[in-house]
Amino acid sequence: MQQLNSSHHLQLESLTRLISLPDETLEQQARDRIDQLTKPPGSLGLLEEMAIRLAGITGEQTPDMSKKAIVVCCGDHGVVEEGVTAYPSEVTEKMMANFAAGGAAINVIARQTKADVYVLDVGSRARTVPDGVIDCKVRPGTDNMASGPAMSRDEAVQAVMTGVEMARRLKQEGVRVIGVGEMGIGNTTPATAIAAVITGSPVDQLTGRGAGVDDAGMLRKIRVIEQAIRVNQPDPQDPVDVLAKVGGLEIAAMAGVMLGGALERMPVVIDGLISTSAAMIAVGLSERVKPYLFASHLSEEPAHRILLEKLGLTPLIHARMRLGEGTGAALLFPMMEAAVALMREMATFADLGLEGP
Amino acid sequence: MQQLNSSHHLQLESLTRLISLPDETLEQQARDRIDQLTKPPGSLGLLEEMAIRLAGITGEQTPDMSKKAIVVCCGDHGVVEEGVTAYPSEVTEKMMANFAAGGAAINVIARQTKADVYVLDVGSRARTVPDGVIDCKVRPGTDNMASGPAMSRDEAVQAVMTGVEMARRLKQEGVRVIGVGEMGIGNTTPATAIAAVITGSPVDQLTGRGAGVDDAGMLRKIRVIEQAIRVNQPDPQDPVDVLAKVGGLEIAAMAGVMLGGALERMPVVIDGLISTSAAMIAVGLSERVKPYLFASHLSEEPAHRILLEKLGLTPLIHARMRLGEGTGAALLFPMMEAAVALMREMATFADLGLEGP
Repeated sequence: MQQLNSSHHLQLESLTRLISLPDETLEQQARDRIDQLTKPPGSLGLLEEMAIRLAGITGEQTPDMSKKAIVVCCGDHGVVEEGVTAYPSEVTEKMMANFAAGGAAINVIARQTKADVYVLDVGSRARTVPDGVIDCKVRPGTDNMASGPAMSRDEAVQAVMTGVEMARRLKQEGVRVIGVGEMGIGNTTPATAIAAVITGSPVDQLTGRGAGVDDAGMLRKIRVIEQAIRVNQPDPQDPVDVLAKVGGLEIAAMAGVMLGGALERMPVVIDGLISTSAAMIAVGLSERVKPYLFASHLSEEPAHRILLEKLGLTPLIHARMRLGEGTGAALLFPMMEAAVALMREMATFADLGLEGP
Repeated sequence: MQQLNSSHHLQLESLTRLISLPDETLEQQARDRIDQLTKPPGSLGLLEEMAIRLAGITGEQTPDMSKKAIVVCCGDHGVVEEGVTAYPSEVTEKMMANFAAGGAAINVIARQTKADVYVLDVGSRARTVPDGVIDCKVRPGTDNMASGPAMSRDEAVQAVMTGVEMARRLKQEGVRVIGVGEMGIGNTTPATAIAAVITGSPVDQLTGRGAGVDDAGMLRKIRVIEQAIRVNQPDPQDPVDVLAKVGGLEIAAMAGVMLGGALERMPVVIDGLISTSAAMIAVGLSERVKPYLFASHLSEEPAHRILLEKLGLTPLIHARMRLGEGTGAALLFPMMEAAVALMREMATFADLGLEGP
């Protein structure tokens, strides 16, 4: 077992060195083309930036975005026993069944935006994984981070590798863009802890109400996060240490999907606070993941804006959502497709017999 | 002719009295249903508000949004001779031909979001209206508002009525939601003048670069808007007076589409600064238009945010766009459809055997 685990570590380390940077020549070609389209220069704002980045990532001037996936990573959290959430851990299992049956918010939005939903049980407490959910459980929930590490380093790395493998599988299946989402009762608590460790910002400025904890629960949540950091002393320079001590299994898997997406030169759309905390871990493992990431929406969780700024990403959707599951990521898909279609289909100034800008 | 015009005035006045308010019972039913769906209460943010409003407007719990239209109202502006724009007036005609041929940004985004584009020449200087553009020209461009009224009251009302008729035609054709957009070289100048008159804010705080005027042009633009207001003294309490003195023909028509949409109980999505200045006029004609309006994106024009706040509307898309044509409005359509689909397709807590919130 120890050998398997140390091979995981080696694998992760060598993987991060294999990530290539987006193609600058294609980015420049895309930029040149955009400025020939019949509109004032820059007037399509962030859609232009998106089209340019997608060209550089995929190596295609107008990439085919038809096959899209949302990966919903699920896990449970030992810290829930501290009373930091509005819902019990059992809801994670119920929601996995709901995803599998197609009745959750992400299923509806993914149907609307023509994306397939993949649900991964990376670490729920469910004894049996519901049909339609991919079983890649590393362990049934984390330990309570308020009194010790949430998991071992080996488990954290194994969960990351689960995500990497998922991204590779999606690439093989012809998926061209991945959105990441999650479900895990209690997971704004580890996500906020990760944000606090990596940004150094005070916990009370980062903490939000998650799925809707009351005032007393909110104060407990702040104290519990502070305690978890004090007890575990995670090293901000060591992303695996942060993940293992104050993270979560679904957070590790999402970081892995981002690493795998970057490895496979696929754009990866992040969602709310939890997936953005995973992005901090992924970028900590390799700065080269950053150019593959796209922000979608700005959530109501206060730490979200701070993490997005740190990543240098700008969310296009400001809808006061705070649901997770990848719902914000899926809403970005139509805008990404529009950005590419504009590049592909708009007339140029020359077409209209006009001088360029 | 005078008789026709005064009949237009009477028609407009009586129309505004016929607008009904959205159905509060259906709004409440929608609210109740949303809180039974498998998600934390309120966690879908503005999508929830959107679904509730759409139910109240259409009188249907989950309205069919399949048939969507973008109405692009076009007009030219005498004030362009003051040197306030980066492009000459001839571009308006070229762009109308571009819309008709399907090569403009709005055509591409509307194809992506499955909306039909209707192009109205309400007041361009084009001698012949391009094929595929609906000819409802009131006059070929406005007069230079820096030295007198842009048009007569009668012309302003006639242009408004053009928009009202368009909304009615769309309703008859089965359209369920309308987005409004525009094309008219120079039209950020009248739109900003309208914003200044109605909000009372200083012109230099409201004025932006439009399609990309340079620093000298920007200073001229501010001076010209101040001069137009000084010369014409529009009455902020009289929307037709504001339209006639410092408005535009396409702005009047867009206000008409909003009035007509409200009359026909259809949701109307506004776009950037120009259409939002039209919304100020429409709401000035009847406060009852307001509940039918939806903001889409927040443009880079500084007056836009101020007008949206005054209207009490929150834009969901923050993409630094400043193109017009209805491009932002069309990008909201997938989110509106997602909002309705969530109401229609999500499982309830009862479905999952869980207690409600």
